[in-house]
Amino acid sequence: MDDILKALLPGEIVSGARISKALGITRAAVWKRITALRERGFVIDSLDRQGYLLVHVPDVLMSSLITYGLETKWAGSQVFCYESVDSTNRVLRTMAADGAGHGTLVVANEQTGGRGRRGRGWLTPKDTSIAMSLLLRPEIPPAKVALLSLAASVAVAKGIRQVTGLEAGIKWPNDIVVNGKKVCGILLEMDADEQNVHYIVAGAGINVHLMDIPEEIRATATSLDLELGHPCSRVEIVKAVMRATEETENLLHDGSFMSVYETLSVTLGHPVSVQAVGETFTGTAEQIREDGVLMVRTESGSVREVMAGDVSVRGLMGYV
Amino acid sequence: MDDILKALLPGEIVSGARISKALGITRAAVWKRITALRERGFVIDSLDRQGYLLVHVPDVLMSSLITYGLETKWAGSQVFCYESVDSTNRVLRTMAADGAGHGTLVVANEQTGGRGRRGRGWLTPKDTSIAMSLLLRPEIPPAKVALLSLAASVAVAKGIRQVTGLEAGIKWPNDIVVNGKKVCGILLEMDADEQNVHYIVAGAGINVHLMDIPEEIRATATSLDLELGHPCSRVEIVKAVMRATEETENLLHDGSFMSVYETLSVTLGHPVSVQAVGETFTGTAEQIREDGVLMVRTESGSVREVMAGDVSVRGLMGYV
Repeated sequence: MDDILKALLPGEIVSGARISKALGITRAAVWKRITALRERGFVIDSLDRQGYLLVHVPDVLMSSLITYGLETKWAGSQVFCYESVDSTNRVLRTMAADGAGHGTLVVANEQTGGRGRRGRGWLTPKDTSIAMSLLLRPEIPPAKVALLSLAASVAVAKGIRQVTGLEAGIKWPNDIVVNGKKVCGILLEMDADEQNVHYIVAGAGINVHLMDIPEEIRATATSLDLELGHPCSRVEIVKAVMRATEETENLLHDGSFMSVYETLSVTLGHPVSVQAVGETFTGTAEQIREDGVLMVRTESGSVREVMAGDVSVRGLMGYV
Repeated sequence: MDDILKALLPGEIVSGARISKALGITRAAVWKRITALRERGFVIDSLDRQGYLLVHVPDVLMSSLITYGLETKWAGSQVFCYESVDSTNRVLRTMAADGAGHGTLVVANEQTGGRGRRGRGWLTPKDTSIAMSLLLRPEIPPAKVALLSLAASVAVAKGIRQVTGLEAGIKWPNDIVVNGKKVCGILLEMDADEQNVHYIVAGAGINVHLMDIPEEIRATATSLDLELGHPCSRVEIVKAVMRATEETENLLHDGSFMSVYETLSVTLGHPVSVQAVGETFTGTAEQIREDGVLMVRTESGSVREVMAGDVSVRGLMGYV
């Protein structure tokens, strides 16, 4: 369906004969695909003796919709969309092992086995969320991946802001928060040796059209539509995140990245509770270093480095 | 064969009847396995009406030989030996993905597709070398893997020293060098997310009985037997490296690790040439930091950080 949709997307009347010739398929096959698109929610007028006209595009995650007018240099250079996968990170890791290139994007309409850090699950119900994973092949040592994980959160926060106007913030290290509740989780997975990263799969799960947040996470999670009060476009968010990814790459190169991250941070300067391995402590989030480490000043005045662990920020996601 | 060998290894006469009963196999099956062991070079006397006596153990990589008297806490908790594999790292990564535990060891007598850093090959010819990979599941962030890669080189250098008495040294980051030539390469591969390592496969390829070093690497590579002037035991080296791995873990915990690494270093204080991405520069290796970074003072007096790249040390491996 992607091929025929590409012909219709410019929004002009296209004759069945032209499509049939361009794609090398019969008029009957053209008709069949038009019908399939209509079944997915596309409104396509059939104009007598003139051809087809696309008049409404539904918010479905199709590669032709994502690549149309994308105009990025490398982010989303190849786009693969799936109706349902276990995990877009897992699908893309298999592609990476088979040699897929820098910038390859995998998007799914539903994830049945989405994952977060520490083996936690992540919910991506059908038609309501975005599950997306981008393949990166940077020439960096493993220690730099923590910085890229901060960068991924900046790209997603910027993308959400650009499409929705919502004040998306970042809870360290890379949760995206709107009005105090989580709308997106990010998980970077890497394959590396001790000196060089082989590849990174940067995955994001974004709650978009979810209207009925499950009871057990209602205090901590929300969706973009719920916060906006009206629907926004998943396709536009994916595109905006791809563009923001390249903008963020520029910030990393020109040295202004950390100040942008700090602007978006909803953790810095706030009281936090840190659940580290074997202990819990509280303090104030004082600084986020370029190596991704969060510096917390405890009540006793000492400063502690937090590399990994769960951090609750007072006033966010149900922590009071 | 491993089961029958275990019964013979204590070096006492064991009756065929006892072996047959203990293993639940027929006397004919016992005889068949004794024959198979003899074919692999074991000398087993058949003493009339008394039983079998093991009188000579050849240097073959079998799990019963490696685990016999090993007495480590976790290193080599499970040992899998193979006659020939493409790469012990690859075999162990598959096991790790399937849930193999911390300390699982894979050893091979031959590697057909051994790998080094940057996709380089590594030669492990049949019967002459050790290819070994150890699975680690530490609770650490990816940035700490560079330190573990230094630790792996300390464990291998100590193991070689203990068995051979040769003054094995470490060329940054983790090549093992004897008399100015490389005897062992180490490659750590990891699977991780941005905060937590999922697992590390630490692989080492050690040249042991190799007597005929290929012309093109003769200036840079050697084997333990060549440097000793007589054969040493691959089995004993594998065992010694497992024990040294646990000793090295203790050094990391008690804070004395870096000083031991420095003692073994053949890079520190020496003139070096660094082939980094896009450039080459020379200087003196001044310090190795705990994050694995090599600090090089250049001729102009500035100090440069080397995270990844090839480093040649004057006087070693053909660099003059």
